[in-house]
Amino acid sequence: MAQIVKIFDTTLRDGTQGEGVSLSVEDKLKIAQKLDVLGVHYIEGGWPGSNGKDIEFFHRVKELNLTHAKVTAFGSTRRKETKAQDDPNLNRILESGVEVATIFGKSWDFHVHKAIQTTLEENLAMIYDSVKFLKDNGLEVIYDAEHFFDGFKNNQEYALQTIKHAEAAGADWIVLCDTNGGSLPDEVAEIVAKAGQAVSVPIGIHAHNDCELAVANSLAAVNAGARQVQGTINGYGERCGNANLCSVIPNLQLKLGYSCISDEQLCTLTQVARYVSEVANMHMPVGQPYVGNAAFAHKGGIHVSAILRHAKTYEHITPELVGNKQRVLVSELAGQSNLIVKAQELQLNFDKDNPKVKSVIEKVKELEHQGYQFEGADASLELLLREAIEGLEEVFTLESFKIIVEKSAGRGVVTEAIVKVNVHGETMLTAAEGNGPVNALDLALRKALIPHYPDIQKIHLTDYKVRVFDEKDTTAAKVRVLIETADADNSWNTVGVSENIIEASWNALADSIRYALIGKTRVEHKQPEPQRLGVINH
Amino acid sequence: MAQIVKIFDTTLRDGTQGEGVSLSVEDKLKIAQKLDVLGVHYIEGGWPGSNGKDIEFFHRVKELNLTHAKVTAFGSTRRKETKAQDDPNLNRILESGVEVATIFGKSWDFHVHKAIQTTLEENLAMIYDSVKFLKDNGLEVIYDAEHFFDGFKNNQEYALQTIKHAEAAGADWIVLCDTNGGSLPDEVAEIVAKAGQAVSVPIGIHAHNDCELAVANSLAAVNAGARQVQGTINGYGERCGNANLCSVIPNLQLKLGYSCISDEQLCTLTQVARYVSEVANMHMPVGQPYVGNAAFAHKGGIHVSAILRHAKTYEHITPELVGNKQRVLVSELAGQSNLIVKAQELQLNFDKDNPKVKSVIEKVKELEHQGYQFEGADASLELLLREAIEGLEEVFTLESFKIIVEKSAGRGVVTEAIVKVNVHGETMLTAAEGNGPVNALDLALRKALIPHYPDIQKIHLTDYKVRVFDEKDTTAAKVRVLIETADADNSWNTVGVSENIIEASWNALADSIRYALIGKTRVEHKQPEPQRLGVINH
Repeated sequence: MAQIVKIFDTTLRDGTQGEGVSLSVEDKLKIAQKLDVLGVHYIEGGWPGSNGKDIEFFHRVKELNLTHAKVTAFGSTRRKETKAQDDPNLNRILESGVEVATIFGKSWDFHVHKAIQTTLEENLAMIYDSVKFLKDNGLEVIYDAEHFFDGFKNNQEYALQTIKHAEAAGADWIVLCDTNGGSLPDEVAEIVAKAGQAVSVPIGIHAHNDCELAVANSLAAVNAGARQVQGTINGYGERCGNANLCSVIPNLQLKLGYSCISDEQLCTLTQVARYVSEVANMHMPVGQPYVGNAAFAHKGGIHVSAILRHAKTYEHITPELVGNKQRVLVSELAGQSNLIVKAQELQLNFDKDNPKVKSVIEKVKELEHQGYQFEGADASLELLLREAIEGLEEVFTLESFKIIVEKSAGRGVVTEAIVKVNVHGETMLTAAEGNGPVNALDLALRKALIPHYPDIQKIHLTDYKVRVFDEKDTTAAKVRVLIETADADNSWNTVGVSENIIEASWNALADSIRYALIGKTRVEHKQPEPQRLGVINH
Repeated sequence: MAQIVKIFDTTLRDGTQGEGVSLSVEDKLKIAQKLDVLGVHYIEGGWPGSNGKDIEFFHRVKELNLTHAKVTAFGSTRRKETKAQDDPNLNRILESGVEVATIFGKSWDFHVHKAIQTTLEENLAMIYDSVKFLKDNGLEVIYDAEHFFDGFKNNQEYALQTIKHAEAAGADWIVLCDTNGGSLPDEVAEIVAKAGQAVSVPIGIHAHNDCELAVANSLAAVNAGARQVQGTINGYGERCGNANLCSVIPNLQLKLGYSCISDEQLCTLTQVARYVSEVANMHMPVGQPYVGNAAFAHKGGIHVSAILRHAKTYEHITPELVGNKQRVLVSELAGQSNLIVKAQELQLNFDKDNPKVKSVIEKVKELEHQGYQFEGADASLELLLREAIEGLEEVFTLESFKIIVEKSAGRGVVTEAIVKVNVHGETMLTAAEGNGPVNALDLALRKALIPHYPDIQKIHLTDYKVRVFDEKDTTAAKVRVLIETADADNSWNTVGVSENIIEASWNALADSIRYALIGKTRVEHKQPEPQRLGVINH
């Protein structure tokens, strides 16, 4: 039997400390559901003592009825010279209604003196009292020993005393934190082993990536006996981020033989990683290990046929084990098989001998060549496929649009759009003013469509992204626009590409509205299930 | 005396295998100069047997007269059943005129059979003959043992035979390559140690990042006796990239006490990393260890004053050691001290009691609050500071602009801009057509300015980036535009922010042109020298 290592995800707490990562309560709830599907054991949802948004999250997460993960709330030990039961932070954790509390305390004598400015004895009491208070209230308690490695190096005996006090008070886990991210794997292994000899409750590791060693440090800690790893999806977190669970989990499970999540759950890893990067609006490096778009990409230089025949000699794992796939950058096959998967999902008759199928494959290839990317724009791809195979009802046809942007010295900009569309034989000519050209275009188009499709009032744009590519040519470069649209129940993504940002935006906008209006596409927009392969290649 | 570990940079060879990394010969020459300043020992410039661009590089790099680094050319062992002296690949290396050759050969029996389809004996002869041929021609030879770790695990004896043959032929270095990036630090350490016992020439390590462990594997190899590390700036490379030298070097030098480059050279690390990311046109993650913009950023949650007083308790190294700096994200002090540094660099009189200074600090704060970021827009910041402290000549004043974008069904988009500006009392009214609104605006503005400033024809936009932020409001969100402009000698960056993408673009565009036209700013736009601190904090 493989030994079990529990996965503690702190994307929603420590991850949001990362520069550029900002999550609304809605975003957090969506991510919590994905984390539950992935099978992490703990989801740290936030710090209820620190802000109201987190309190709302803990209130609403209960309605999600998560199946695997326990939700945990973060906080600190009680303030100095107070009683735990009077501590507002600790009481916020109780009020949040979680079953698991995660509290941190000081391990480093220097920080006790300088940061909280109290005695070493009082700090030990703060740890003991706080853990005990939460245990007495029936919670599972995870004690995060902040700065443990630096503290241990500075004053080994005191650092060990702090975790012994947490143990004595009943802590269920003691998690050693490399808060500054400055430790090396050998040090981590040695100190984890020593801590493991000092206490008998299970140990966890919380590593930061300041030396680009957070994953290595997490593995070193597990090999030295740790049985919980704290980290975040894609390694988001303050400064250089936290240990990246998207690398930690497959390393532990596929390389070292530990058991974290099920094989089926591991297959969702790539999907979860990309989903979280979308929701957090963070650029995902193509070369991100295991889950990046280029993680299993092969350039044509080495014999492509050899790779296809003997993949294990050029890939360290079978990409499907983590829900990723091999890409042979010059192969024409790759795109085609993606399309077949998508068509199956939409239950379209995608027979290869069908000339319509051939022509849509050609069309998608041509669009990708122009710079379209359908990975983040499922709705645009679905429209293309349905249009080609089944034909689609024409919900509106553009006759023309015109946008005027005017600025005079000392005044703001005025932006107006005029749209002429044909809806079921009727020409609608409308105009609208917006705070930018795309906004004006969107408003004018809606005005034109509302008389025929009043439901359009229920949908709204929720995200708009612009990416200039092939930047060497600058303003003559191409622009890719991604639009996310939502109604009360669903959301969908569309894409447009052009040299002209306005035309690219129009393409994405028109797709988003068409998708909403075409009845048959209003069923819930599911993510494709990852394909399963049974064989582990190592 | 610290032990010396040689740094072998392969950004220009393996790095260009990374998806999205594309370097012209000019780019490669510029990067080679920076690498020389950084103090790497070897610069692998390319594969002269594989493409003509690399041959040109080796020809022209000699004119640079690099002071530290040896330039090396890459190639493979001779083809099977041929003579080394007849091998075109090996002869291209000689013709490239380098003093150092780096050639790779097969270590994994499986690859010998399947990929090159020859006998194990012939492969050993290919290694021996190729190394010997290059040595006989007077070159230093670095032998890269491809797939060494996988080969060793599969057939230890054969893998060791391959490197013994390289040694017998006179190889100066034997570099063990984890080509698929699937090895773990403990394995690497063990296998490097065993290889080190088998041969007496110095060993190197070449790691890939497929498990997010390339840095850890490189350190493990050095601890096990390796004395050369191959890697790339920012970890660029095929799939998940190569070992990131920007993390390897400071870890080796600041954490483990090895000596790679001088302390002064280490101070240029951040600058080199950012420069290479600019030239390679790759997005640099803000959280990149050691050199990222957020690597030493602190959010205000923890006591800022404590961080400032006791930085070592919150930072694993002094950021200035690698040419980076601390950023305190919400502190009012931080912005102010940044401004003071910048003003000193521009030799402006930035006395705090000067009311102009107070007002420009307020203004920058207000702009940052609106979403301006000056870190990537030095020219905009310089204009603001010079304007506030010294006053600036008015090179032109906008009276108005108007942009019209028109699209009719079945036709392309037509985009026109009309610009009215006042130049030295004369009103210029011009119009231009562009392939997008910003391009049209740029062209119209240039038309208006050329009669007064003919030099403007020498400058051109080289990059245009759009970032929508606070995307929750979608088209009502704000847009930040970054523009890079260049003339023959220099380049500079400007920023604009607005709810309206056109206005944001205008702001950045107007700044870029103003910067170019204001005489005193046409001096070379230097990167700030990194500040030096003498104390190592660990």
